[in-house]
Amino acid sequence: MNIAPRTRAAVLSEALPHLQKFSGHVIVVKYGGNALAESTDDAMEVFARDIALLRAVGMKPVVVHGGGPQISALMDRLGKQATFHEGLRVTDAETMEIVSMVLLGTVNPMLVSLINTAGASAAGVSGKDVGLFQCVQRDPALGFVGDIVNVNPVAVQGLLDDGVVPVVATLGTDEKGQSYNINADTAASALAVALKATKILFLTDVAGVLRSHDDVGSIISTLTEPEAMELQAAGVITGGMIPKVESCLHAVKGGVGAAHILDGRVAHVTLLELLTDAGVGTMFIPDEAIR
Amino acid sequence: MNIAPRTRAAVLSEALPHLQKFSGHVIVVKYGGNALAESTDDAMEVFARDIALLRAVGMKPVVVHGGGPQISALMDRLGKQATFHEGLRVTDAETMEIVSMVLLGTVNPMLVSLINTAGASAAGVSGKDVGLFQCVQRDPALGFVGDIVNVNPVAVQGLLDDGVVPVVATLGTDEKGQSYNINADTAASALAVALKATKILFLTDVAGVLRSHDDVGSIISTLTEPEAMELQAAGVITGGMIPKVESCLHAVKGGVGAAHILDGRVAHVTLLELLTDAGVGTMFIPDEAIR
Amino acid sequence: MNIAPRTRAAVLSEALPHLQKFSGHVIVVKYGGNALAESTDDAMEVFARDIALLRAVGMKPVVVHGGGPQISALMDRLGKQATFHEGLRVTDAETMEIVSMVLLGTVNPMLVSLINTAGASAAGVSGKDVGLFQCVQRDPALGFVGDIVNVNPVAVQGLLDDGVVPVVATLGTDEKGQSYNINADTAASALAVALKATKILFLTDVAGVLRSHDDVGSIISTLTEPEAMELQAAGVITGGMIPKVESCLHAVKGGVGAAHILDGRVAHVTLLELLTDAGVGTMFIPDEAIR
Amino acid sequence: MNIAPRTRAAVLSEALPHLQKFSGHVIVVKYGGNALAESTDDAMEVFARDIALLRAVGMKPVVVHGGGPQISALMDRLGKQATFHEGLRVTDAETMEIVSMVLLGTVNPMLVSLINTAGASAAGVSGKDVGLFQCVQRDPALGFVGDIVNVNPVAVQGLLDDGVVPVVATLGTDEKGQSYNINADTAASALAVALKATKILFLTDVAGVLRSHDDVGSIISTLTEPEAMELQAAGVITGGMIPKVESCLHAVKGGVGAAHILDGRVAHVTLLELLTDAGVGTMFIPDEAIR
Amino acid sequence: MNIAPRTRAAVLSEALPHLQKFSGHVIVVKYGGNALAESTDDAMEVFARDIALLRAVGMKPVVVHGGGPQISALMDRLGKQATFHEGLRVTDAETMEIVSMVLLGTVNPMLVSLINTAGASAAGVSGKDVGLFQCVQRDPALGFVGDIVNVNPVAVQGLLDDGVVPVVATLGTDEKGQSYNINADTAASALAVALKATKILFLTDVAGVLRSHDDVGSIISTLTEPEAMELQAAGVITGGMIPKVESCLHAVKGGVGAAHILDGRVAHVTLLELLTDAGVGTMFIPDEAIR
Amino acid sequence: MNIAPRTRAAVLSEALPHLQKFSGHVIVVKYGGNALAESTDDAMEVFARDIALLRAVGMKPVVVHGGGPQISALMDRLGKQATFHEGLRVTDAETMEIVSMVLLGTVNPMLVSLINTAGASAAGVSGKDVGLFQCVQRDPALGFVGDIVNVNPVAVQGLLDDGVVPVVATLGTDEKGQSYNINADTAASALAVALKATKILFLTDVAGVLRSHDDVGSIISTLTEPEAMELQAAGVITGGMIPKVESCLHAVKGGVGAAHILDGRVAHVTLLELLTDAGVGTMFIPDEAIR
Repeated sequence: MNIAPRTRAAVLSEALPHLQKFSGHVIVVKYGGNALAESTDDAMEVFARDIALLRAVGMKPVVVHGGGPQISALMDRLGKQATFHEGLRVTDAETMEIVSMVLLGTVNPMLVSLINTAGASAAGVSGKDVGLFQCVQRDPALGFVGDIVNVNPVAVQGLLDDGVVPVVATLGTDEKGQSYNINADTAASALAVALKATKILFLTDVAGVLRSHDDVGSIISTLTEPEAMELQAAGVITGGMIPKVESCLHAVKGGVGAAHILDGRVAHVTLLELLTDAGVGTMFIPDEAIR
Repeated sequence: MNIAPRTRAAVLSEALPHLQKFSGHVIVVKYGGNALAESTDDAMEVFARDIALLRAVGMKPVVVHGGGPQISALMDRLGKQATFHEGLRVTDAETMEIVSMVLLGTVNPMLVSLINTAGASAAGVSGKDVGLFQCVQRDPALGFVGDIVNVNPVAVQGLLDDGVVPVVATLGTDEKGQSYNINADTAASALAVALKATKILFLTDVAGVLRSHDDVGSIISTLTEPEAMELQAAGVITGGMIPKVESCLHAVKGGVGAAHILDGRVAHVTLLELLTDAGVGTMFIPDEAIR
Repeated sequence: MNIAPRTRAAVLSEALPHLQKFSGHVIVVKYGGNALAESTDDAMEVFARDIALLRAVGMKPVVVHGGGPQISALMDRLGKQATFHEGLRVTDAETMEIVSMVLLGTVNPMLVSLINTAGASAAGVSGKDVGLFQCVQRDPALGFVGDIVNVNPVAVQGLLDDGVVPVVATLGTDEKGQSYNINADTAASALAVALKATKILFLTDVAGVLRSHDDVGSIISTLTEPEAMELQAAGVITGGMIPKVESCLHAVKGGVGAAHILDGRVAHVTLLELLTDAGVGTMFIPDEAIR
Repeated sequence: MNIAPRTRAAVLSEALPHLQKFSGHVIVVKYGGNALAESTDDAMEVFARDIALLRAVGMKPVVVHGGGPQISALMDRLGKQATFHEGLRVTDAETMEIVSMVLLGTVNPMLVSLINTAGASAAGVSGKDVGLFQCVQRDPALGFVGDIVNVNPVAVQGLLDDGVVPVVATLGTDEKGQSYNINADTAASALAVALKATKILFLTDVAGVLRSHDDVGSIISTLTEPEAMELQAAGVITGGMIPKVESCLHAVKGGVGAAHILDGRVAHVTLLELLTDAGVGTMFIPDEAIR
Repeated sequence: MNIAPRTRAAVLSEALPHLQKFSGHVIVVKYGGNALAESTDDAMEVFARDIALLRAVGMKPVVVHGGGPQISALMDRLGKQATFHEGLRVTDAETMEIVSMVLLGTVNPMLVSLINTAGASAAGVSGKDVGLFQCVQRDPALGFVGDIVNVNPVAVQGLLDDGVVPVVATLGTDEKGQSYNINADTAASALAVALKATKILFLTDVAGVLRSHDDVGSIISTLTEPEAMELQAAGVITGGMIPKVESCLHAVKGGVGAAHILDGRVAHVTLLELLTDAGVGTMFIPDEAIR
Repeated sequence: MNIAPRTRAAVLSEALPHLQKFSGHVIVVKYGGNALAESTDDAMEVFARDIALLRAVGMKPVVVHGGGPQISALMDRLGKQATFHEGLRVTDAETMEIVSMVLLGTVNPMLVSLINTAGASAAGVSGKDVGLFQCVQRDPALGFVGDIVNVNPVAVQGLLDDGVVPVVATLGTDEKGQSYNINADTAASALAVALKATKILFLTDVAGVLRSHDDVGSIISTLTEPEAMELQAAGVITGGMIPKVESCLHAVKGGVGAAHILDGRVAHVTLLELLTDAGVGTMFIPDEAIR
């Protein structure tokens, strides 16, 4: 941007309290498959540079990603028909292999590359490495769909201690080494709790929780658990927003300082949230934080 | 096996000098795509348990793998035609994505799972993590085929220091983050040199270097560089064996104590080589080692 | 032994779960004076190599020894008459000096030498070093016979941390620096508790606890404290076995995972117990372990 | 400043390469007495916040200060007449005490306070602490005017390692504990060399080295030693600028990456230099750096 | 002194139990402004050598000083009139600056020099460094007179860990960086508590607490809190002794092992107290210590 | 001793430069068998307290001992006839066992006890522990008499690092674990070199090197190698003094700062040498030290 140097210096100076507040803190950033799918190459580069910046100013960002739309695309290319059971994708062995190929072989290395190219050191982590996401099968009718029963964050922690940005692909494993398809929001939230993160940011393709469905102006900036429960009962939080809200609440109940639903399509949304006074998206905080 | 306990105890006791010799040493094991393709599930489990054993007795094994046959299989499934230029596979962007999906999404997590299930801690490492295999393009006519120009082993070293078994997928990256298809034997050899490994074992689908082409009894157990050169000039080392021999020589010239070509189809071949007096396969040693 | 390499490899492979189970764990091995006295030079070398093997595969063995028969032998040579009070040897100043000369000057350096020669690093530790076994006098009528009131394991711990095998001579000291003759089984047990050992093995000259006095086939493989008490009340555990059983129970009550009475005359008995599925000797476990 | 959040985010993002370049590097900032004297309270706060920002983004800033005008002011208040010898202030015992009171008792705690208030941790360091600036007397006729013969930076290094910003008062000491008045520019330069600093910034009350004396537009942005020598011979560098240039050259000859003469009266001048592409002041670089 | 070498050796030998008792312990020594004012240069050198000796034999001495008489002297020189409110000095901005100049610019560097010259490594610490003494204003009518509300001893602790003797000037700071005049005895006591010191010695210009006002022979050698309270009620402890006694009691109630009021004019009084059996001054001990 | 407290304080104060000079330095003290044999119990306690004092004031003393007279005494008791070959004791297997019993079982634990009782932490070290003194046989006709070919000081160094006083018994070992009788002076000197000691003190039963055989007043206080050679050629250094002088010269040629021959019968002779200005015994210094 064409901005005068002294304006640049002033902006940097005014970021000081934000920088001091989060220095050395773990920040988990969930970059959703939908956000990815809708991002241009440039937008993904901006995201990667933002992550590199968080690292450069002393935070410890962890990127977690899924890849739903990308999985569907490869299934199509391979002529594999998706089937559903009670609204959930049935994951047979072939589907599981496709999930693994997409998450570990396509999405993960792309994000690693972008962050490395932005000047930070990134490394991919599979949810199977050193038993990161340990799972049990949810329901035989769903095939290899797993529920996380334990998180072993040592590999991620080791990378953080070495100054590396971990990029985590959300698949799980059981004791026998079988791979499982897991929900990426849930996994990100569980990892944030295990890492005692200060914040978790969910980068989605919506602006946040809206009071009126189609009115972006009705965005709710802060929510505690009882308030979120109430809104759900009142039918304000519905559909695909419900699992995201639940992941946020799981995180803050597990000790994470705050959880945010942000619009991943907005340029520099992570910087806006972490390094400026701008109010963006919806923030979930522990009940006691408002007392 | 049905073996008397006191025989077992005697065997363990007699392994003592071997255990003491390699304790704390880095051992790179290249598990070839062909060896993988011809292995039964049981054979791969045996391999994984051997690696876990090396770790359990205090060595630092590093597994490096390629995946040629598996890549071809996925190209077939996706109806992608392979093309060749001077005998080398032309790697366009789509092929590169397939390579990435197979190495990172199929072969790597399978090996990680097997080693974890054998009771060790394994973690996958991509050649793109923290710039592990830094490449330049070999020839525009070949597309994304890369030559390694630098190895940054910090991610692998970090895992070794934490007691984890690194499982390394051999793809490379350039400064812009572009992925490259690289030769797995060359990559394993370069990594062994960077890690100052004591040994590198190439697990292949042949018995070793044979003096007479079809006579397994004519296997040559030890070779120095001048001897290997001579045999190549004499037409004894030919075809697919040439690049393997060159990788072995590159390793020992780079400071690795010894390089071995072993038959990966033989059960427990790594244990035979490292923990018994049995002479198996062909060993390459530095020239000065025989003086 | 003349065993085929592939059988050797299979045996090593099958030891994997045992190796993983005890890696990094402290294992105290009490080598009794009687076992020593009845051992040939070869048998002692085998013992030393077994200890070196435990160290080589990542365990932290600690050898504790007494020297009753060797003390009696030197008293004979010096023409010193032994006297007893209520069945215990009266230890006057001259006897105490003989005890010290035998334990520290004969038995201890012999074991240190054998283990060093087997390729491990061993160092002798006197119970007087840095106040390892702090004692009070039991009964003036017995002279310098001591009861342990405190264990300071820092010297032993320091050696373990440096990868050295401590070989501990069981004599004690009081605050004034006076030496005391102490029971070696009791001392080994107290040290195992202080080191939070996983196991303590008592190598004796009997097969274990027998249900019928002369019938080796009647050996009891596992005992908890109440069962041991019952057997003692029933007159099954008698005589010299009583203090050994008490040392075992003291260890497991103090937090040691299991205590074993083993026949030190059986070759490789420590390996049989620790690295094979063979049931040898009698194992004492905490009461709660069987619930 | 009233700047849109997304502009702020863009500015932060564009600072990334600068942040990455100096992360973990030692930056010595000499804040001159003249710059101090001409600064308003607000300007000094801005300076302190800039230093806190450098620390917050991972650099290791060290502030070095003198206090000439402030010393003169206190001498006036105390009715002490200044005397000069060949242009240098004669420093008798009373003058030395005044120097000490001003540097350690007035200027130093003021800077420490301002930086602490900006959210960083600052601590004052006297040049006498742990023998930081070891001196000999220059000339008896000058009294306690010292030349630095050794720098012991351990106290400063210790603070840097603990994340603290050292604020260094430039007085020296000899072996007998006598205090000396020393040149602050020289001391800053010697400290930068001892700390192997990446950069030293001299904040003065001029714009930099000018080709034409009164023409700020004629500022020279980069100089090597031979060029500086030539300009001095040509009479372009004169008067009070000579010692500053010599301190710059001393630093880069001693291994400091670059030395800068900057106008301390410009708001955020340290940020402009370190975190933007703006060319401000004059930079001295080692001769070899331009080859 | 002219003492025979073998007598010297005997004296050193007999100091052994004292040396062993305090090795590695933190000893806070408050050197009062009055003691300083009445000390000859030689006496201060003796004090500094004693501190260096404590460090040399393994203790961790911390020197804390005030400077009341020296402050009054500078005020006189500057023609500044002192005013009082309810017996306390009103500290306006100019007075605060004088306090700062004297403590940081005169007294502190003098003590640092003397201890450095005695062969130890000393460094000055201001109560403002890294928020050492955090204050609030006591009473607006008194100006910048502060009460300590928090002690952050990390800078002092860091120096102790590096083998340096911290010399602490007792002024405080609030969150806005404003300096405060604080009571030096109170500050020393608060620092001793924060450092978990073993002892605090107050070097004053009196012999200790006397039972009869003018009779040095009536000195009380040991006091607990209830006894001190009683003596105060009985009018035995009066005037300037009251705040000193309160600082002693504050220290021992805060966990310091013992607090001593000693006559700083007696040569080597710190050595007499710490390294000989001589009973000097008055010692305050926790109530439970005498049970 | 009946010495006034203020005299005690003065003596301690005057020891300061000596304490500072040797703080943290390794000091090897060889306590000879003859010195031991002629010492009363009280004298040995004094020696032990002196060692504890060196440790308490921050030095790192290492005690090395032999036991010639004590070995002869036990041989007598056991009716073992000593035989000699060219003036050296022939050491058969039985003699070697007696040497081991005396050094490790009698002398070593006695010294360990005395030092522990003096309030330091001491631990015995055998020359066989972790291959401390590695030997070869000197001459088959002498039996197990060894010459040191390598010193592995890690066990001794480990104790020093933990604040423990090592007490070293001088016997050696070869690769097969065979024990050897070695010269204690030579061993002490070799250990001092391996530990990079600052000083080695040989406590003997003579006053030092005398210019006139029977005249203690003719003691030579300082010698360099050429001077010592000259005195030997001139017949001034003769008999049993020759090997001691050679051990001293070996030490200083190997990098030890100074070697001293002292009279171990003089009370506190180690303190006299290390902590006072008294000139006692003969000091050997490197040739270059006098330039």
